[in-house]
Amino acid sequence: MQKTEKIYGIRAVIEAINSDKAIDKVYLQKGSRGDLYKELEILTRKKGINTVYVPVEKLNRSTKGNHQGVIAHISPISFFELEELVERVIATKEQPLFLLLDQISDVRNFGAIIRTAECTGVDGIIIPKKGAAPVTSDTIKTSAGAAFKVPIARVNHIKDAIFYLQASGIKVVAATEKTEKSIYEVSFKKPCSLVMGSEGLGISPSTLKAVDEKAKLPMMGEIGSLNVSVACGVFLYEVLRQRSLS
Amino acid sequence: MQKTEKIYGIRAVIEAINSDKAIDKVYLQKGSRGDLYKELEILTRKKGINTVYVPVEKLNRSTKGNHQGVIAHISPISFFELEELVERVIATKEQPLFLLLDQISDVRNFGAIIRTAECTGVDGIIIPKKGAAPVTSDTIKTSAGAAFKVPIARVNHIKDAIFYLQASGIKVVAATEKTEKSIYEVSFKKPCSLVMGSEGLGISPSTLKAVDEKAKLPMMGEIGSLNVSVACGVFLYEVLRQRSLS
Repeated sequence: MQKTEKIYGIRAVIEAINSDKAIDKVYLQKGSRGDLYKELEILTRKKGINTVYVPVEKLNRSTKGNHQGVIAHISPISFFELEELVERVIATKEQPLFLLLDQISDVRNFGAIIRTAECTGVDGIIIPKKGAAPVTSDTIKTSAGAAFKVPIARVNHIKDAIFYLQASGIKVVAATEKTEKSIYEVSFKKPCSLVMGSEGLGISPSTLKAVDEKAKLPMMGEIGSLNVSVACGVFLYEVLRQRSLS
Repeated sequence: MQKTEKIYGIRAVIEAINSDKAIDKVYLQKGSRGDLYKELEILTRKKGINTVYVPVEKLNRSTKGNHQGVIAHISPISFFELEELVERVIATKEQPLFLLLDQISDVRNFGAIIRTAECTGVDGIIIPKKGAAPVTSDTIKTSAGAAFKVPIARVNHIKDAIFYLQASGIKVVAATEKTEKSIYEVSFKKPCSLVMGSEGLGISPSTLKAVDEKAKLPMMGEIGSLNVSVACGVFLYEVLRQRSLS
């Protein structure tokens, strides 16, 4: 399996951030000081990069190099800008289909979703920069390589992406049990995007307010909820089914 | 998380097998001898129980008790007899729905499938005794507890189960890409059962010969195959969708 690429050292990591490398996460040593270190902290906050403070031992175990209290994990795939992705798709496709993932945290679920997206012709996946499962070598493996094929855009807030899609004429449908409307009552024929929520919490209430329509899957039994990658598959295939009807 | 129950000692394991306890796997010490040990080996073969030969060190690590070269892992759930399950369902349901899993080997996929089965009203899951993912505490966790709710039957061969279902008036549909027929062209309204294949190999050729119909999911993109738990979800929801139409 492909190993995660790492960059360490304060200047090197600042350089990587400034050159817009796709950074999964920056590990910072607890209690570090210094002007350059401060600069890095400010930069990560400004760019909305995932950071985590760890004891020096963890950094020492992670690399033999002189890490200076900083290690960044670089994503093996490159990400798209939302605007660039949406404009390109709109210009070339009649019935665009986007998938927004609101904080999917499990790497295997994320991988399976990317794989399904590739098989159902999704034009782009949109994920938040913070709080989402990273694109690691495990994600890529579970995606069966689809992570290299489906464009993925990272945004600061899923809600901003929803507003941008709506302004571009793309309907946004949330997959949620918090509605009376069944998936079979919602039309996916026009350009649209689907929002899937996190494993534990579903779609956040403020995101849910921003969408155009909500749709739920019929549920029998007592458990009343599916694994998120399974639910996503059922939704995406319903889009395909509707679009295949004349 | 619930720990797997273990039984050790030759007589204890023979007793457990004879009393039809649901045994996941029997670990046997490589190179063990003796009449009773031989009797146990014959019994596991006769009953189609999963066995694996391991060095004594592995058994010593697994228990502090006097294992006598034998440790059996007991499944946390109890299994049904196929005949009993099918008869009971036929007697009480108008549109029975069964799910046959041909060698699903990944515990998380198995758990997600059981969960989806519970949510879609599947009346029973049928798995082979050998070669399938065991029902472990991880399966139960991934199933969100559904493993305690959906009846599961274990059979020696999936093909025998198919013949039994067919003889009981239940149509058997295989989910496979080895067909030209789309899932939307197959009717699931009558009593039916669905066969899902293993992650790597799909449904075995001899099993595929035994089914009444084959159905595939439409595929865009290049990868051309879904995670098996996702594919299973799409199929089961198509059954639900068709059955909800008048």
